[in-house]
Amino acid sequence: MAGSKGKVCLAYSGGLDTSTILAWLLEQQYEVVKKTGLPLRKKVNKFSHEVRFRVPIENTSADILRAALQIGATKMIIDDLRKVFVDELCWKAVQCNAIYEDQYLLGTSLARPVIARGMMKAAEKEGCDFVSHGCTGKGNDQVRFELAYLTINPAIKVIAPWRDPLFYQRFQGRNDLLDYAAEKGIPVTSTKAKPYSMDDNLAHCSYEAGMLEDPNVTPPEDMWTRTVSPLKAPDTPLDITVHFDKGLPIKVVTTQETVTESLELFNLLNALDDSPAMTILRLAHISIEGLVLDGRVRSLRDNLSKQWSELLYNGLYFSPERAFLQPSLDFSQQRVNGEVRLRLYKGNAYVLGRTSQEKLYSEEDASMDSLTTFDPSETSGFITINAIRLKKYGLQLAEAGIEL
Amino acid sequence: MAGSKGKVCLAYSGGLDTSTILAWLLEQQYEVVKKTGLPLRKKVNKFSHEVRFRVPIENTSADILRAALQIGATKMIIDDLRKVFVDELCWKAVQCNAIYEDQYLLGTSLARPVIARGMMKAAEKEGCDFVSHGCTGKGNDQVRFELAYLTINPAIKVIAPWRDPLFYQRFQGRNDLLDYAAEKGIPVTSTKAKPYSMDDNLAHCSYEAGMLEDPNVTPPEDMWTRTVSPLKAPDTPLDITVHFDKGLPIKVVTTQETVTESLELFNLLNALDDSPAMTILRLAHISIEGLVLDGRVRSLRDNLSKQWSELLYNGLYFSPERAFLQPSLDFSQQRVNGEVRLRLYKGNAYVLGRTSQEKLYSEEDASMDSLTTFDPSETSGFITINAIRLKKYGLQLAEAGIEL
Amino acid sequence: MAGSKGKVCLAYSGGLDTSTILAWLLEQQYEVVKKTGLPLRKKVNKFSHEVRFRVPIENTSADILRAALQIGATKMIIDDLRKVFVDELCWKAVQCNAIYEDQYLLGTSLARPVIARGMMKAAEKEGCDFVSHGCTGKGNDQVRFELAYLTINPAIKVIAPWRDPLFYQRFQGRNDLLDYAAEKGIPVTSTKAKPYSMDDNLAHCSYEAGMLEDPNVTPPEDMWTRTVSPLKAPDTPLDITVHFDKGLPIKVVTTQETVTESLELFNLLNALDDSPAMTILRLAHISIEGLVLDGRVRSLRDNLSKQWSELLYNGLYFSPERAFLQPSLDFSQQRVNGEVRLRLYKGNAYVLGRTSQEKLYSEEDASMDSLTTFDPSETSGFITINAIRLKKYGLQLAEAGIEL
Amino acid sequence: MAGSKGKVCLAYSGGLDTSTILAWLLEQQYEVVKKTGLPLRKKVNKFSHEVRFRVPIENTSADILRAALQIGATKMIIDDLRKVFVDELCWKAVQCNAIYEDQYLLGTSLARPVIARGMMKAAEKEGCDFVSHGCTGKGNDQVRFELAYLTINPAIKVIAPWRDPLFYQRFQGRNDLLDYAAEKGIPVTSTKAKPYSMDDNLAHCSYEAGMLEDPNVTPPEDMWTRTVSPLKAPDTPLDITVHFDKGLPIKVVTTQETVTESLELFNLLNALDDSPAMTILRLAHISIEGLVLDGRVRSLRDNLSKQWSELLYNGLYFSPERAFLQPSLDFSQQRVNGEVRLRLYKGNAYVLGRTSQEKLYSEEDASMDSLTTFDPSETSGFITINAIRLKKYGLQLAEAGIEL
Repeated sequence: MAGSKGKVCLAYSGGLDTSTILAWLLEQQYEVVKKTGLPLRKKVNKFSHEVRFRVPIENTSADILRAALQIGATKMIIDDLRKVFVDELCWKAVQCNAIYEDQYLLGTSLARPVIARGMMKAAEKEGCDFVSHGCTGKGNDQVRFELAYLTINPAIKVIAPWRDPLFYQRFQGRNDLLDYAAEKGIPVTSTKAKPYSMDDNLAHCSYEAGMLEDPNVTPPEDMWTRTVSPLKAPDTPLDITVHFDKGLPIKVVTTQETVTESLELFNLLNALDDSPAMTILRLAHISIEGLVLDGRVRSLRDNLSKQWSELLYNGLYFSPERAFLQPSLDFSQQRVNGEVRLRLYKGNAYVLGRTSQEKLYSEEDASMDSLTTFDPSETSGFITINAIRLKKYGLQLAEAGIEL
Repeated sequence: MAGSKGKVCLAYSGGLDTSTILAWLLEQQYEVVKKTGLPLRKKVNKFSHEVRFRVPIENTSADILRAALQIGATKMIIDDLRKVFVDELCWKAVQCNAIYEDQYLLGTSLARPVIARGMMKAAEKEGCDFVSHGCTGKGNDQVRFELAYLTINPAIKVIAPWRDPLFYQRFQGRNDLLDYAAEKGIPVTSTKAKPYSMDDNLAHCSYEAGMLEDPNVTPPEDMWTRTVSPLKAPDTPLDITVHFDKGLPIKVVTTQETVTESLELFNLLNALDDSPAMTILRLAHISIEGLVLDGRVRSLRDNLSKQWSELLYNGLYFSPERAFLQPSLDFSQQRVNGEVRLRLYKGNAYVLGRTSQEKLYSEEDASMDSLTTFDPSETSGFITINAIRLKKYGLQLAEAGIEL
Repeated sequence: MAGSKGKVCLAYSGGLDTSTILAWLLEQQYEVVKKTGLPLRKKVNKFSHEVRFRVPIENTSADILRAALQIGATKMIIDDLRKVFVDELCWKAVQCNAIYEDQYLLGTSLARPVIARGMMKAAEKEGCDFVSHGCTGKGNDQVRFELAYLTINPAIKVIAPWRDPLFYQRFQGRNDLLDYAAEKGIPVTSTKAKPYSMDDNLAHCSYEAGMLEDPNVTPPEDMWTRTVSPLKAPDTPLDITVHFDKGLPIKVVTTQETVTESLELFNLLNALDDSPAMTILRLAHISIEGLVLDGRVRSLRDNLSKQWSELLYNGLYFSPERAFLQPSLDFSQQRVNGEVRLRLYKGNAYVLGRTSQEKLYSEEDASMDSLTTFDPSETSGFITINAIRLKKYGLQLAEAGIEL
Repeated sequence: MAGSKGKVCLAYSGGLDTSTILAWLLEQQYEVVKKTGLPLRKKVNKFSHEVRFRVPIENTSADILRAALQIGATKMIIDDLRKVFVDELCWKAVQCNAIYEDQYLLGTSLARPVIARGMMKAAEKEGCDFVSHGCTGKGNDQVRFELAYLTINPAIKVIAPWRDPLFYQRFQGRNDLLDYAAEKGIPVTSTKAKPYSMDDNLAHCSYEAGMLEDPNVTPPEDMWTRTVSPLKAPDTPLDITVHFDKGLPIKVVTTQETVTESLELFNLLNALDDSPAMTILRLAHISIEGLVLDGRVRSLRDNLSKQWSELLYNGLYFSPERAFLQPSLDFSQQRVNGEVRLRLYKGNAYVLGRTSQEKLYSEEDASMDSLTTFDPSETSGFITINAIRLKKYGLQLAEAGIEL
């Protein structure tokens, strides 16, 4: 095609941002001829190709396919990355009890490497010159996508519309996008009444922007699409058992069914009323580790888990430092085998009991009523030796007149 | 008194173990005369003095006083350590979001230093030669008490009956204790039907021993003395606001009342149906920190919080290393000011919103719809520079034929 | 002045880069009028003002002053930051044994915050609109300067010529700079025969660029301007004593003299033949800490020392995270008091002995020949308790057929 | 044999302590019959068997064999553990740049696991009931031996004479040992004039006890048996090249010879005048890592190196936590390939140059004179983004009136 400057592979979700970006990229093709001075990597002359990836939680493929083609994409590729997402990313997170700043289970962070890798494979296969995404220019989600792209294949350039003045000076906020979508007849689900952005995948659904920028706004009830509000959850608890093998969830048993295939298992936990899979699995995994993992290994491992979580959060799954942490993290799971019984109730999970064939915990050893395996008088020496330096410390403080 | 070998200050809780120990120590006074070869520090000839400390949650003083004197203690000292427990230990734990192995809020670990220090002060004042406690010889609670004793004043010796063969060979489990108590007319609340040990203080109530030694046993419902089972909790949520100043909870507002005094505030949170204070405060503190604490400070601080928690767990509150961590932990709280609105429901707490006058978070800066304070194109450089080493990494792997 | 766009405060060292930059900035004033499209912050129309900072090691002020004014600077400010450099930055580094990647004593990294702060104070006083420096666009020295500038006063803009295409496309390497300097009559000490860049301050002298970019090139002997090559060092050793108070070097005694003032002390150590101050002080400080610092405090402190060193290396002295680390680092030095005797010989320092009045180390306690303060049989219990979990580990491996 | 209570495998070095212990254990056999009440594990009735292990540096076997049999050992086993010591322990230490408290290269700590494992294999093969060693009851060397013994086979009991009152009350210091040796005709090298203990192996020679208990005593010149005093070292430097493959030293080239076998290589480095192998190899390894190891991997790895070193120091080579650290430590060495040229002079080593075929470092990329691979203006964005939070920090301080 005359004037064509290259193919773009766009991470298309069917949402407001990426639908607009798709239309805008197509529109740019014609405008570019008339403009000069725009840096090369931001030019998009031949926009013959769109690829869309997501980790879908339900079969919305047909709708999205139709929408993308309607807007003008040359081609729509839907790749089911759900199983690899669970088997590779979610399972690694479960194995190290990953969490960021004590709260965030890394839902978006876990999905980005899988999507980015899928996009790059498609881009290479389809001969694309560019990849593009709809991430805002202010957050770290753009960083996650782009660091992954550049690590995988730096020869394919990145178009980030929300960092391109041509784009962000034209669309100064979500209202401009909505107006543009209306004008172009682009089908979108966002409305001005619900002006927030959503990231929805198998592991979680998160929101940002709009009224949520005020941290004192309570999210409205209708945002809970994945889970039921605890206030509306069933009044009867549900008991389940999760089986682990080398730290991996290999079986979930409910009163109704037994599931062993990883994606099916993940979906089942997501469907149990109101407690998404990652929350349940993290609790269950911590619980079984409490039974079988040596305490000092646990402490050292937890340092690595924190680093792993921070790397994922910062878009560094594909990095030498994450690769460096992995062998020891994996090694720690060799004996994380056993079962955990849980009760799910009103949006929470509670551990009812746990068992393992591993040798670390011994009821006989732990029993207060048994001394067959242990001579308690040994502990006196343990305490005395540990106290040597503490006595010196106490003496120093006393001499300095400092009261403990 | 003829044959007197020294005064003992006993940490007396009124429970089965310490009641038996009290009687046994008195009994030893007479037996000792006839025995030789027992190491000196285990001898208790003159047992003229008992002191008991706890962090009481309700006014059971009169009963315990009566029981102790009935068994034969020379003197019973009840010292109200509740406020210092909250102000010094619990508040430090809240300020650093202390938790051990992702689960344990350190209830017992926080109380031990306060009790041990109180005991040593009384022991010094009353001229005691020994201090004693009822901790099992297998756990780490004995370590917590004794390391604190020895740091504070190593001249006062420790009697640990559960590590003394004379004691533990005579009482081979809880049933022997119950039999002995029955024989001696010692008033105890444990029965053979409820054969477990309880540690109860303002921050938590924990159980161990007996049937709980099997980790697959679900704790029976009647063990929940402090909290209501979520299944029996009220059907209506309760909304509260917690105010922080320098990371300290300084005010709690409910629909009914406003409380500012620390002990009162702690008791109020404990009384709110079903959610103990430490759980609520930890969540609220994490939430306000998310608004005002710099991310890298947060990460470095969290490393220290983990170390602080491990030190507390291992009985090292009074130690040079805990003292070393404290200045930076305290420093981190200088700007942890603001309010958190929470919903309490069925044993859980949920954050509804949060505000702060501190400058770190800015709605203007964070807004996706505003570019007055930020030029998004700068981010391209940020990503490019960060990707330099990642590109090299990707290239290395590609050359080695390793797929990401 | 007509066409004036603002005053620039330049970090001027008198070297090739900054001399050229000074001339180029003046030259730009005229060119700018003719150019458009250059981003505002890179424009320098009125170049009325130059300020130069360094941490001088000898009195070269007069030469530099003359050179700067000769090139055309409006004003030359020479601020003696040596004492604050030693007292604030070097002493903090000594107190935490700062080192980067086991090798680098952070000489340049320690100087940058002091210079940047001095520049900003002068820039504010003189009403400058810009600050500028001569750091290459590839290293992290530019990052150190600019992060400090922006933290101190973001209203003053930064001119980084080596990142400005107008500059770096004109001067494509050191040879172009030398040609330009020759053409303009700028006095410089670099020649094409010695094509490397030097950073010289009180703490160290480092080189980069040119032939040194090949890591297999051995630096030529004539680069050792600060120190004598070990091969040429005196054949007789020199013994000195360093006294510490709270981790700070407060006195150095040689056979010739006794020095207590910090800058004088630092200069003396630098002058002792061939062993720069930071190397000697780090060794001496490590040695005295071995005598007085609790081992667990040492280990936790060393974690913070590593983080401190990495922050300094990355230009984050002025940062909330460095400020967060400081209180505990300072606290750790409370009892680091005593004296270390050292022998200096052929470029190395050796510890001969050390003493302290602090209580941590006790000859009596350590003595193999004395048992008055210690009952060695206690150690058996210590080992037994520590071995409990190890025995389980050994058993697990044996059962799995894994040989240790 | 009548009265026999078991065989003992003793770690016999031929030094004063273990020679005395050997004689004393034999003597105990007869005395024990007359004594009761001594705990079983301290009894040694049948002392039919002695095994001695060391990591010998020279062929002193014949002397030691003769001495042991002369004193009365039933059997003397000399096992050459030198190669496994180098290949397993020393090489792991080199790969992670192991060092304890910035100074100690862990010479003794590295040898203990190898010796303990060798002893346990011999003890099992010979049917011993006990193992014994001559470590003092005050240090941590006893802990290293015994934790290893108990991990490998807890069924074999430990005899630690220096913690047995029968022994240490009889021998109250080194003078008593010397008297006893003289009386019994035991051949020892210690004299009252040189009252210190020595630990000598392939990696180092260390001393303790006696006059060395005063940290202000300068070790006398005649203690340097392994190395030459720098003052007496040759006046000409020696240049060598060390080749690494996956972080392992695989070849050393001097002007005289080329060595590739690990033990031979280690011995050669030890023999090079005056610079022991571990010091040279640590420096060379750090230097090659500086060229090929990603900076963030390096930082995370260094955290693990510190933990590894602390574990070794504390006798925890055979432990689940050391095993946990190993996979990532090993992984980090995959690309640590290249050569380092060093100059050895007067007891020190200096890096002259280094090369590697790995891709991490690129002269082209690093060159200040080349911009083909890098657009320096990207760095502005990098700095701006990193400064966002720093500007807020500076603003906060300014508003609070705190000067940076």
